[in-house]
Amino acid sequence: MSFQRPPKTADELGLMRGFPPSPDARVTHATQLLGPYNRWSFQNIQKLNPTADVWRGNGPVAHFDEELGDIDEIPYQRRDGTTYTFGEMPELSYTDGIAVVHQGKMIYERYLNGMQAYTRHAWASGSKSMTGTIAAMLAYEGLFDLKAPVTTYLPELNASGWASATVRQVMDMTTAITFAEGKPDPLLEQPGMAHPSMVENWMYSVTMGWRARPQGYAGPETSYDLLATMKRAGKHGERFTYLTPNTDILAWIMKRLLDKPLADIMQERIWSKLGAERDACWVVGPTTEETSGSGLLTTLRDMARFGQMLLQQGWFNGQQIIPTAIVEDIERSAKGSSPYSHHWWMVNKEHGAYCALGFGGQMLYIDPRAQLVVAKFSSYPTPVDGGEEFFHAFAALPALANALVR
Amino acid sequence: MSFQRPPKTADELGLMRGFPPSPDARVTHATQLLGPYNRWSFQNIQKLNPTADVWRGNGPVAHFDEELGDIDEIPYQRRDGTTYTFGEMPELSYTDGIAVVHQGKMIYERYLNGMQAYTRHAWASGSKSMTGTIAAMLAYEGLFDLKAPVTTYLPELNASGWASATVRQVMDMTTAITFAEGKPDPLLEQPGMAHPSMVENWMYSVTMGWRARPQGYAGPETSYDLLATMKRAGKHGERFTYLTPNTDILAWIMKRLLDKPLADIMQERIWSKLGAERDACWVVGPTTEETSGSGLLTTLRDMARFGQMLLQQGWFNGQQIIPTAIVEDIERSAKGSSPYSHHWWMVNKEHGAYCALGFGGQMLYIDPRAQLVVAKFSSYPTPVDGGEEFFHAFAALPALANALVR
Repeated sequence: MSFQRPPKTADELGLMRGFPPSPDARVTHATQLLGPYNRWSFQNIQKLNPTADVWRGNGPVAHFDEELGDIDEIPYQRRDGTTYTFGEMPELSYTDGIAVVHQGKMIYERYLNGMQAYTRHAWASGSKSMTGTIAAMLAYEGLFDLKAPVTTYLPELNASGWASATVRQVMDMTTAITFAEGKPDPLLEQPGMAHPSMVENWMYSVTMGWRARPQGYAGPETSYDLLATMKRAGKHGERFTYLTPNTDILAWIMKRLLDKPLADIMQERIWSKLGAERDACWVVGPTTEETSGSGLLTTLRDMARFGQMLLQQGWFNGQQIIPTAIVEDIERSAKGSSPYSHHWWMVNKEHGAYCALGFGGQMLYIDPRAQLVVAKFSSYPTPVDGGEEFFHAFAALPALANALVR
Repeated sequence: MSFQRPPKTADELGLMRGFPPSPDARVTHATQLLGPYNRWSFQNIQKLNPTADVWRGNGPVAHFDEELGDIDEIPYQRRDGTTYTFGEMPELSYTDGIAVVHQGKMIYERYLNGMQAYTRHAWASGSKSMTGTIAAMLAYEGLFDLKAPVTTYLPELNASGWASATVRQVMDMTTAITFAEGKPDPLLEQPGMAHPSMVENWMYSVTMGWRARPQGYAGPETSYDLLATMKRAGKHGERFTYLTPNTDILAWIMKRLLDKPLADIMQERIWSKLGAERDACWVVGPTTEETSGSGLLTTLRDMARFGQMLLQQGWFNGQQIIPTAIVEDIERSAKGSSPYSHHWWMVNKEHGAYCALGFGGQMLYIDPRAQLVVAKFSSYPTPVDGGEEFFHAFAALPALANALVR
């Protein structure tokens, strides 16, 4: 067993220290998604981007019972055969905060890299699981039909590649959509960003507001406009292809039918009922549209509350927040063959476990068999999810689940 | 008495309706400060700008006792001699929300133009009074010396026009500073914005992030850099000249000495103690520096809480939040000759009343004699504070105060 040097914190790196911070210590909108700047930015996304707030409501906080357990010594094995312990994992995987809830009790809670219990952290693509869950709830209520073509609700897409896709295909990301292929992505020229499948498309990021418009930009004005330009490449419904714009289509349908921003829908349906400690936020694009596949910010415990609500089949804080049938459907998918369903990653068939996963190490891991929820925020130096830090986290969590089941 | 047609609401104007909103219904970062776009934007500043949040803390809300009074019929006279009633004033002065607290009880509370009790609204330049009050508290604690030159704390300003100014002069805006004079302000070309003394300087707004950098911008990178380029024009300490950069100097001194962002200082000193209903926010510039003279966002009741705390000489929510001596000093100034002191406007000598005032109709009116606090958020069509709507508000409040004293 070898304990590696812990990663440097934002403070140790000097990021954003001082008034003003020296130019080389600055984290900007342009560098916010890159390591090591993300050691600061993922806890400060609101300071770099416009956001829509999601009010927690006036109700009391739904506090977790605490029963801190000794799980630090639980071993896990990485794919190269080396063994580590759970307690080593948070630093090795550049954790900002990790909360472990077992049988409804908070058994482990740690904050690193300057994060506090009240800090809101980026979910990145983990946001998709929030949007997907809300969409599943509204479909269940009959607001829209999962079997209908998306153009039933969004006629703007009639001439696009989305035309023949159903809402269900969008929800499960089995659409066959391509866009802006062959265009160079300036972000790829950054060190540590050499994995094109894991970075958002440049034009997409620009229309969503995550990256600045270059001078002379003449592309689509809004993400809505961009979605309408996307083309089909193949047959919808045949295979899973991870593509963030699917989430935007889902969000657009909900906004269109309810005539409300996604932030307000989430407020009414989830956040006002969850007993959250703090408001949530969504990063918004140029027409204040939520970046529904990437822009959610919450505290760590609030992420854990959302996970625990799902683990409890929708019942939390004294009320049924989402219908049991939806969670049953997700759990059924977790035992099926697709790696992704309802905008959740299916990660352990035997346990029926599913997970929200986001760029840079964001995770909400829900394991029904182990009665386990793990919320984890991180700031990986290599945002590509094939880095070593990713495999630490993804070896430690199933090992923890197995130990808790025994 | 003539009741004018009420102003159109954001909804009636169609602003930001639909997904996406049609191009002519959009409110953007570029138009956010202009009427009628401000009917939407002043309640949605967070969706158009990066912000730093100010956590309310974990404590309970300090609820106001309610004793709704009948003040609608109290008459006031405008300067042209026409008479209106207090109940007419909110619509005539484009109010988004108004709360009246008398003897510690909420006697009047109205929301218009779609505003809700939980909505955070822009304080605009009313923010200065928050920054000034915090500065007065820290000076009282001895963190810095009001009689010292600002360069004692900010040596970066040694070669600037600020060099010989004291902190007290900055606090009372009796510095003699000029900058970027003669440069055309593109905002002035907008209809309704023809009053140069009331608009922020263009370059200043750009460095603070309120307005976009034009292509080829080669000015100062940050507001800190800009402050260091400002020149002296005359002798410091001779007369009051309203100039927002004074507030930035104050905030910079506090951030430098405490090594914390202004948002965090406000959190620790004020917001965590006030029993606020919601977090506050500050709009931030490119190095995430708070726009200390213009960027505060809070709910209406939270603004009233801050006012009531001052009316009660710093005691609120079961604790002394700011020292009595500071409020006594402000009240003494309110009976003096200067129109502005401690970053508050002095508005009624007889009553010792003082007021925070912000672009577009933001007011926190504190009248010790009448035991009255009025918090008012508005979205004037003419942001210039010489518009008719301004005089409605500024005639109605003293009339209300007089009626309550009788």
